[in-house]
This record gives sequence, C-alpha cells and structure tokens, in this order.
Amino acid sequence: MTTEGSREILVRAGGESRSYTIYFVRGVRERLPQMLVQHAPAHRYVLICDTNVDELYGDGVGASLVDAGLNVSRLTFPAGEAAKDRSTWAHLTDRLAELGCGRDTALVGLGGGVTTDLAGFVAATFMRGVGLVQVPTTILAMVDAAIGGKVGVNLAAGKNMIGSFHPPSMIVVDPAFTSTLPRPIRAEGWVEALKHGVIRDRGHFKGLVEQAPALLEGDVAATAVMVEASAAIKGQIVSVDELDRGTRQLLNFGHTVGHALERVTDWSVSHGRAVAIGMCVEARAGEMLGVTAPGTSEEIRTALERFEVDVAMPDVDPAAISRSVRGDKKSREGHPRYVVIAGIGHALPDPWLRELPDELLEETIAWHAAEAGRAVAGRWSGRL
Amino acid sequence: MTTEGSREILVRAGGESRSYTIYFVRGVRERLPQMLVQHAPAHRYVLICDTNVDELYGDGVGASLVDAGLNVSRLTFPAGEAAKDRSTWAHLTDRLAELGCGRDTALVGLGGGVTTDLAGFVAATFMRGVGLVQVPTTILAMVDAAIGGKVGVNLAAGKNMIGSFHPPSMIVVDPAFTSTLPRPIRAEGWVEALKHGVIRDRGHFKGLVEQAPALLEGDVAATAVMVEASAAIKGQIVSVDELDRGTRQLLNFGHTVGHALERVTDWSVSHGRAVAIGMCVEARAGEMLGVTAPGTSEEIRTALERFEVDVAMPDVDPAAISRSVRGDKKSREGHPRYVVIAGIGHALPDPWLRELPDELLEETIAWHAAEAGRAVAGRWSGRL
Repeated sequence: MTTEGSREILVRAGGESRSYTIYFVRGVRERLPQMLVQHAPAHRYVLICDTNVDELYGDGVGASLVDAGLNVSRLTFPAGEAAKDRSTWAHLTDRLAELGCGRDTALVGLGGGVTTDLAGFVAATFMRGVGLVQVPTTILAMVDAAIGGKVGVNLAAGKNMIGSFHPPSMIVVDPAFTSTLPRPIRAEGWVEALKHGVIRDRGHFKGLVEQAPALLEGDVAATAVMVEASAAIKGQIVSVDELDRGTRQLLNFGHTVGHALERVTDWSVSHGRAVAIGMCVEARAGEMLGVTAPGTSEEIRTALERFEVDVAMPDVDPAAISRSVRGDKKSREGHPRYVVIAGIGHALPDPWLRELPDELLEETIAWHAAEAGRAVAGRWSGRL
Repeated sequence: MTTEGSREILVRAGGESRSYTIYFVRGVRERLPQMLVQHAPAHRYVLICDTNVDELYGDGVGASLVDAGLNVSRLTFPAGEAAKDRSTWAHLTDRLAELGCGRDTALVGLGGGVTTDLAGFVAATFMRGVGLVQVPTTILAMVDAAIGGKVGVNLAAGKNMIGSFHPPSMIVVDPAFTSTLPRPIRAEGWVEALKHGVIRDRGHFKGLVEQAPALLEGDVAATAVMVEASAAIKGQIVSVDELDRGTRQLLNFGHTVGHALERVTDWSVSHGRAVAIGMCVEARAGEMLGVTAPGTSEEIRTALERFEVDVAMPDVDPAAISRSVRGDKKSREGHPRYVVIAGIGHALPDPWLRELPDELLEETIAWHAAEAGRAVAGRWSGRL
C-alpha cells in the first residue's frame, strides 16, 4: 500500500494486476461521473442500492451520472442483512440479464456492507465477472466491508458462507454520506475501526476513543480523518495478503465468536454488537491463557462503551456458541480457530489463527455474561 | 503448456501460481485415492455426480476413496443440462454446509460438462473457494469443459451466464469411462475436438475424420490418443490466456450462433449439435465475406456428418437467432461478435472476435437451412 498525498490509498490485488485505489473525496455527486469514466470505463453502469439508500441518494447520484451522459440503470433491493442472500443475488442477476447488460457493464455498489458484499458477488458472477465500483455510505463499509475484494452472501448456516474474491476497480469514500446515519449505525462501524487498532495500531485505538463523542455525533471532519486512518490499516493488511492465507486472518479478531453469536441468535444481534462482544470474549480468553496482557479485555470493553455499544452478552447457552464456532469458515478439521492478541496494538505472531479449547471458550463466555472483574491468568496458563 | 512424457499436460493458471496438471491414466479407481492425497490434499472430499454417473460409477469410485482411508461424502443431482442452474447449485452448497464441510474440503466433479461446470461453481463459491478436482467421464468434458477453469450455471436468458474462473487442482482423464457413453453422446464430444482442429490444427481435424468410425464405436485406444491431442490444444490456448481476453476467444468458434440456437429452441437442440450447426454457419459467413477459403464450410459439414451429427437447421426464424446473439456474453455495446476463420487450422488473427452484420448472419442461416451448395464470395466481400 502506498499513499499519494493523503487522499488516496493504493490497495494491491491480483498480484498487482488488479490493484485499485481508494479515493477520499468530498462531493461525490459532482466527482463520481468523471471518476467512473477515468478509472472504471464501461459501456453501461448499473447502480445497486437498498431501498433506504435509494430513497436518500438514489435520485441524486443517478441523475449526476445520467447528466454526465453515462448509460445508467438502477436496481434496488430491500434494506437489511436478511436481503444478503442467494435469492436477492439471483434476482439482481436476472434483472441484469433482462436489461441486456453485457460483460462491458460495471456495477456501482452504493450503500453499506450488505450492499457492497451483494453488489460485489453479483459483479463477481454475472457473465463470470464484470466491473465493480464501491461507493460505501456507512462507516462500516468505508473502513472495512468495501475494502479487500471479499464479496458474498449469507446462508442460514452462517455469514458469508457463499462468495468469492472480486476486487473493485476503485472505491470512492465520501464521509458526507455518514451524516444521515442513525447514531447506533455509526457506532457499529467504529467497532471495526477499533478492531483495526487492537490488532495493529494502539495509536489508532486511542485516537478513536478520544474522538468518540465527535464521531458519534457525526462530525464530518473528525469522521474523515479516522475513516481514512482505519481504511489505511485494512488496505495495508489486504495488500500483503489478498487471499486470506496469512496476515489478513488478523482481521478476524472478535469474529469467530461474533459470527457464532449472530448465527445462534438468528441474526437478531447486529454484526457490530456481535463483534464487539466477540472482541471482549476473545481478548479475555487470551488473558486466561496468560498470553494477553491483563486488563486488555477491560480496556476494549471500556472503549466500546464510549461508543455506546451494548456489550452485554445476550441470553444464549455458551455451549451453543461453542458448537456453532465449529462450522466457522476459519475451522480446520472441524476445530474452530481464533486470533489471539498480545495486547492492544499487537496480535500474537504467525500462526495468526490458533485453536482454543471449547471449555475455555465456554468459561470465558460465562464470565463475560456475568460481567465479572479483571481477568486473572490461572489454570489456563501455558495452554497455547 | 509443457508435456512430460506424453501422459501429462501442464496448464498454466493464476499467473502460474494456480497451474495444474491433466493426468491421462488407466484405472482411475486404483489411481485416484493416491493422486488426491498427493495433488489435492484435503481434510475431506465430496464426490459430486449426476444420477446417471452415480449409478454407473458412484459406488466404485466412492468405495475406492473410502477404502484408502479418505473422509468422503457423495452428493448427487438429476442428470441433464436443465439441472445446471442456480437452484441445483444452491442445493449443493446447502448440503455442504449441513455436512459441516470446512474450507479444507475438496470437491471431486465426476461426470460430463454439466457436472464439471456445476461442481466447479460450487467449489468457486462455497466459503469463497474450496479445492476442486475434475474427473471427466465424457469426451466433451475430457477435451473441453473440464479444462480451463471456467465454471458456472445457466440462466433462462443464456448458457453459462453466471459463473467464474476457478482452476482445479488437477484433472484426471481415464478414457475407459467413455466406453459406457451412448454413441450420440460420444459424437457430441468430438464436435468440440473438431473445433480445436478448425481453429488451430488441420492435422488434428484430419486425424479425427479418419478415426471417426473407431471413435464412434468407442475404441478406447483411439479415443485415448485423440482425447489427449485435443485436450493439449485446449490446454495450450487457456495457458496463454486464462481469463479469456485474447486467444482463448478462438474457442468460441461456432458458439455465438450455437448458444443462440440452444436458447431460441429452449435447449431442445443439444450443445454439440448447436455448435456443429454454428460452425457450419459461421464458416459459411466467412466465405460470404471472402475471407474464409471457399469450401471450408462444406468440409466442416462433411466431417461432422462422418460423426453422425445432424447439422440440419431446426425450424427457427433466422431473425430470432440474430436477436438472440445480441445477448451473448461476447457482445460489446450490444453488438454480437464472432470468431472468423481463414480456413481449417487457422483463424483470422487478432482481433479474435469480429462483428458481422445481422443481415449476413440471417442470410447465411437461411442458406444453411436450405442446404444450398458451395459458398460463393459475392456482395459481402470486403466488409470485414
């Protein structure tokens, strides 16, 4: 990853051949048409967004493209994680075929993580792959989902169980979109930014905590700075390991437990909250093993609470979670694997994913549910 | 592409990093378990085949893997092109999730082109990609479908409209499988082999014509020789252009019209027959333009008839075909494109795909339908 000035981040993909740039801009409506022509030339463009984003921004962005003389269509789907499934994907591919779209089409995913994942999977599979531009509108999509080329849909059996790698031609980030986000949705996004701090950069973590009130309020200047810093961490990690065979697995911190929580609660716990709880539990498990600095889990929890994220454990059986983690994509030979951190800003070195005993996981979940005090390394010491 | 001895063909993919070998073997049941362990190591294997192949070979191949101590499951789907759709794909991905398959699973596609395309698309998309081994059982799959990493399913709107590139870990070809094929199914496969001769190698074309009676009879020795020669042509082409941006497009000779014919007849014309007719029509169009050697179309038709392929044009409106070709994956800006050959053994040089006037296409189809005599370059000369 390199930066040119401070407004662009180059992300390596496809062994350089499919590298792309994240552009940080203000005034996407004015800028997007020219950027598409320059960085993602296509015979026609299809804007894909959910019904919420369509109502807020569909007409404006669509009109700006039409006014610039581009051949543009617009497809929408119902807002919400439930729409990120095979049937919405099938519907969108059918609509592209009906529109007579050829392989010289580029899709523009305008929205949050559901949209960038779904539009991305459509782009990856329609006619074996068409162009893709991501225009994230949420914090979560700006710092995480839109970056790195992972695209896909959920199965009842688990998040993102179907998908592929399909790097975009470019990502256009305009922090102004975040001004219309509800406060809890902003907070969800900052959870992934905090995660970037935990696994890689203590300074980023501390900066986020300090700026929490402004970021929650939707202060665009503060948001722009922190989004760019956080996107840079993600961009750097996926640049060195696009296909998730090494360092990129660090991004799964909090996600082994987080994804299981989403699954066992039938997606009633949001992704951000599930990952937040997952980070607390997985950090605490590391403390129990004596490899994570004492107090780390608590520092993470305090930071999450500054962002008004509810980290209370929902009423689920710890055994159900430890059963569910076995079906995780990170499992090998049926054994779930976790990212373990040394402390805030540093993960344990390679192997990035490590097996933890089910019993430890269940005990840690129970402890977190009881919101007991500081972690104490004890009988689990020396087990990793 | 390189050959080691004469029993292996190396196919380049993923910028070398995902290159794989086509192994020509006898006695796949005895050889496969060890080959899987060596070339496609996985925690578990899932054999995917249609109900016909399952009945003939499922128990035998399955038992050989189980006997070798491998962790093996078997999934089947209904035989026939109609099953190559999103719903069969969705069913297979659900079954993998139910079986608790992790990313350390490899799928083994055992069957014809429908199976290798479908198993390949499941492997490409389940958990963003798992291992894939192709064990083709038809001539068509051995010389064409299993090679090159193109995987996918059909939409009502067209063949292979959904898919991706997912190179296998290896391809295992045992010509003995072809002994149980019905004679017309063998012939279908040799159509694609003839196409390889037309676009690249007059000697291969002539060899096929000479061997036609033995090949139709299912003579295993003759089949082995011609399958290997034909697979080598395909392997060489996809090695220089995996992602279909240049030379690989040559493989589409006969397929612009062929795919349209399949579509407008609602798949009642088989792929092999549709491509056979497509080759006659597209060669004839080249003759009309004065760029293809006179008599080429007739020589192709005679060769196809030696393989007992019915090249009579079904009763369809030529205008319906010229409308349908516009939705082809090869179209750009809504204009269909075709491979044009100079004569048998040679295509016209880059650009590999060229636009032809709708009117010429319709006239050529009408001519072919009337089975009129030798092509004469006339008013279309100089139009390419």
